[in-house]
Amino acid sequence: MSNELPSRSDRLIARCRALAACTEVPGETTRTFLSEPMHAVHDMVRAWMEGAGMCVDVDAMGNLRGVYAAAGEAMPRLLIASHLDTVPNAGAFDGILGVLFGVALVEELQGERLPFAIEVIGFSEEEGVRFGKPFLGSLALIGALDDAWLAVRDTHGVSVDEAIRNFGLDPARMPEAVLGEDAFAYVELHIEQGPVLESEMLSLGVVSAIAGQSKLELRFLGQANHAGTTPMLRRHDAMASAAAWIVAVEQYARTRSGLVATVGRVETRPGAGNVIAGEVLATLDVRHAEDGEREQAAVELLQAAQREAEARGVRVESRAIAMQAAVPMDTALTAQLCGAAKRAGYPAPALISGAGHDAMIVGRRVPAAMLFVRNPDGLSHHPHEVVLAEDVEAGLATGMELLRGMSVARGDAACGKQGLHRAEVEDVHA
Amino acid sequence: MSNELPSRSDRLIARCRALAACTEVPGETTRTFLSEPMHAVHDMVRAWMEGAGMCVDVDAMGNLRGVYAAAGEAMPRLLIASHLDTVPNAGAFDGILGVLFGVALVEELQGERLPFAIEVIGFSEEEGVRFGKPFLGSLALIGALDDAWLAVRDTHGVSVDEAIRNFGLDPARMPEAVLGEDAFAYVELHIEQGPVLESEMLSLGVVSAIAGQSKLELRFLGQANHAGTTPMLRRHDAMASAAAWIVAVEQYARTRSGLVATVGRVETRPGAGNVIAGEVLATLDVRHAEDGEREQAAVELLQAAQREAEARGVRVESRAIAMQAAVPMDTALTAQLCGAAKRAGYPAPALISGAGHDAMIVGRRVPAAMLFVRNPDGLSHHPHEVVLAEDVEAGLATGMELLRGMSVARGDAACGKQGLHRAEVEDVHA
Repeated sequence: MSNELPSRSDRLIARCRALAACTEVPGETTRTFLSEPMHAVHDMVRAWMEGAGMCVDVDAMGNLRGVYAAAGEAMPRLLIASHLDTVPNAGAFDGILGVLFGVALVEELQGERLPFAIEVIGFSEEEGVRFGKPFLGSLALIGALDDAWLAVRDTHGVSVDEAIRNFGLDPARMPEAVLGEDAFAYVELHIEQGPVLESEMLSLGVVSAIAGQSKLELRFLGQANHAGTTPMLRRHDAMASAAAWIVAVEQYARTRSGLVATVGRVETRPGAGNVIAGEVLATLDVRHAEDGEREQAAVELLQAAQREAEARGVRVESRAIAMQAAVPMDTALTAQLCGAAKRAGYPAPALISGAGHDAMIVGRRVPAAMLFVRNPDGLSHHPHEVVLAEDVEAGLATGMELLRGMSVARGDAACGKQGLHRAEVEDVHA
Repeated sequence: MSNELPSRSDRLIARCRALAACTEVPGETTRTFLSEPMHAVHDMVRAWMEGAGMCVDVDAMGNLRGVYAAAGEAMPRLLIASHLDTVPNAGAFDGILGVLFGVALVEELQGERLPFAIEVIGFSEEEGVRFGKPFLGSLALIGALDDAWLAVRDTHGVSVDEAIRNFGLDPARMPEAVLGEDAFAYVELHIEQGPVLESEMLSLGVVSAIAGQSKLELRFLGQANHAGTTPMLRRHDAMASAAAWIVAVEQYARTRSGLVATVGRVETRPGAGNVIAGEVLATLDVRHAEDGEREQAAVELLQAAQREAEARGVRVESRAIAMQAAVPMDTALTAQLCGAAKRAGYPAPALISGAGHDAMIVGRRVPAAMLFVRNPDGLSHHPHEVVLAEDVEAGLATGMELLRGMSVARGDAACGKQGLHRAEVEDVHA
C-alpha cells in the first residue's frame, strides 16, 4: 500500500530528488528565478497538484499556485508554501521540500474537503541569486514588490520584466498575484539549515522567530610594502589587522548565547605573496533573535576592528550593507503547530531561524508559522544536503494533525469526501 | 656650474624621474622586460652614456651595456649595474637609480682614464613581472639562463624568444652576452626597500648579505556552511583558522630578531558574506639572513597553522613555492665599499637586504658588493617612492672614493685624461 507511513515520506523525498535534476548547470542543482529548467519543475509539480485535486495556475511573478477547494463557498484559505528556486550547486530539499509537503498533505486528504481551502504555493524566487534580491515571489504575493525592481538586470543584462516575459508570463497581470482577504494562516515547512535538531536528536522544531541580521563591509587601510625589507615593527599590515579582528569576532560570538558572527569574504590588495597587504576588504554578518543583542554586537565588533587596526597604524572604514530586524512568527499559529506536532508524537522545541524565509515576508499580511525538519549533517546550500524519511514522516504527521485541529477549530469536522477518489490519486503517483 | 655637489645629485634624480615617464600604462610607471617603452629608456640612457665617453651596445637579452675604456689595453673591468625594468605602478628609483649612478660616476671622471675599464649595465629584467622569473638579465650575463626559459610565455602568449625578436634582438647571439674573464668586481647601488637607514638617520648602508627566503602556500580546508544557521561551536571555519594563524605569524616574527614573515595574499572560498569560508588560500613569505633561523621559522609557522586549524576541525595543506638560501656579499669588496663611504664622510653600517638583487646573481661569478641609499618613507614598489638629493650625493661621493681607492690599489693613480673634454660632456647634459 503506497500510503503506509514509510511510503509517503519516501515518495516525497523521491520527488525532491527528481526535481533536483532540473538544473541550469548539468551535474549540479542550480535553478534560479524563471530559468529554463523551472518550466520542467512547474510541469511536474502541476501534475502532482492536479492529481491531488487542485486547480493550478502560475501567477505573473512565476509563482506556481495550486488551490484545493474548501467544503463550501466563501470559506477561508490556508496557505502552505515554500520556494522552487535554488542557490548555485544546491541540495535537493531547500525550499522544494516545503512545497511538496503541501502537495502531500492535500493528497493525504484523499479528496476529503475541509472547512477551509488550501493553497499550496511554490514561490518562484527566494534565494536572491539571479537579481541580487531575495523573496521576489513572496513579495509579489503580498503586493510589496516595488515596480522599480522590474527594471533591475541580471548579469546577462536581462531585466526582471524581460525574464517574466521570456518565461511566457505577463508582468501587467502582477496585481492579480496579490493575496486576497480570505487567507487566514501561512504555514511553511523547511529543512533546518543548521545542526540544532540533529544535536538534540529531534525530528522537528517550530520557529519562534527569524533572527535579525546586520551585514557590514569593512575596509582595513594600511600601507602596502615590501615583505622582505620592511621590519615587523615598521609595518602597517592591513591583513594582520584584519586577522586579529577576525579572531576577536569569533571569540566574541562564541561567548554570547544565540549570536552568530561570520567573516565569510576577505580580499587582500595588492594580494601578492611578497607584498604586505595595503588594503583588506572583509565582510561581517551578525545575527541574533534579539535586535538589541545584534545591534550591540555590531557596535562592539566595529570597535574591535578599530582597536586592532589602530594597534598597527592601520585605518578602518565600515559601511552597513543591510540591517534586518528579527521577525517573530505568529504566536497563536506557532502554538497550534507545536500542539499538532505533540499530538503526532513529535516534540518540537522552539528554534530561532538564522536564515531568512518567505514566512517572514508573508507574515506581514497573514499569521505565519514555520516547521523545521532535522538536517542530519547540518549541511545547507550544499549538494550533500540530506533529509531522513522518518523526519519527513514526522512533518507529514504533524501537518495532518494541524489540518485536523484547524478543521475542528473551524467547527466543521463533518465534511464529506469530494473530488477525486483515492485510487485516482494513486494513479498519478505511480 | 652643473657639477657642483648639489647639481650632480639633482641631475641624477631628474633623470630617474624622466625615465619614470617611459611606461606601458599612462599615468603610472610600469615597464616590464623588453616592453615598448624600454626603447625610449635605452635611447635616453645610451645618449648619457655616449656623452660620458662610453661605447654602448644592447646584448641579446636586452641589457644595455656601456663600456668606458681603461687607461691601457688588457686591463680588468669593473661592473656597475642595476636594472631598468619595474614592477607595475612602480616608483622612479628602484633599479634605475643604480644604473644612472654608474653613468654619473663615469661623467665625474670627465674623460680621465683609470687602470680598469668600467662597464655600466642596465639589466633588462630583474623584477620577474612579465615572465614570472626574476633576474633574466643578470642570469644571461653570467651564462646561467637555461634555454628552456626562451619558450616560456607571458600572459599574452608571447615567448621570451619572441619578446627578444620583437625588440629587434637576436636570441642566437645570447652567448655573446656572457661576461668575459676580465671582470674583477661588481658594484650595485640601490635604493633601500625598507626604513632601516631612515630610522638610523643615515644616508648609506652596505649590504653584508641578501636574506634567504622561504615562500609557501597554505590551504585551510574547513566546511562551507550557512552563516546564519550554523552555531559558533559547530563551525569548521577556514577563515577563522587562517586568521588565528596570521596573528601567530605576526607575533612569532615580531619576537625574532632579523626575521620577517608576511601573509600577503588571502583568498576565501566560496567568498560570500553569508557563507562560512570552506577554504582559504594564504601565502607565507619568511626571510632571514641566517638560513637556519629561516628554516626553523618556516617549520614552526607551519606547526602553528596545524594547531589553529585542528582547534577548529579544519585541515591544512602546505606546499613550498621557493626556498632561496641567503647570499653573502663579497667580504673584501664590501670592506672596500665601506671604507670608501667612510672616507667620503658617510658612515655606512652593514645591512641585510631583505629583497633579492642582481648582485646575488652576478656574485656567483664576480665578487659583488651593494650600497644602499636611504629611503625616507620606506616605501618600495610604490609610486610615492622618493630619494633625497643629499643621500644621492653621499652615494656619488662614495662611488668616486671607491674608484679612487681601486685605482690606487691597482697601482696606477697617474692615468691622464683622455677622451671627451668635460665641456663636451656637459653639452650632452644640457
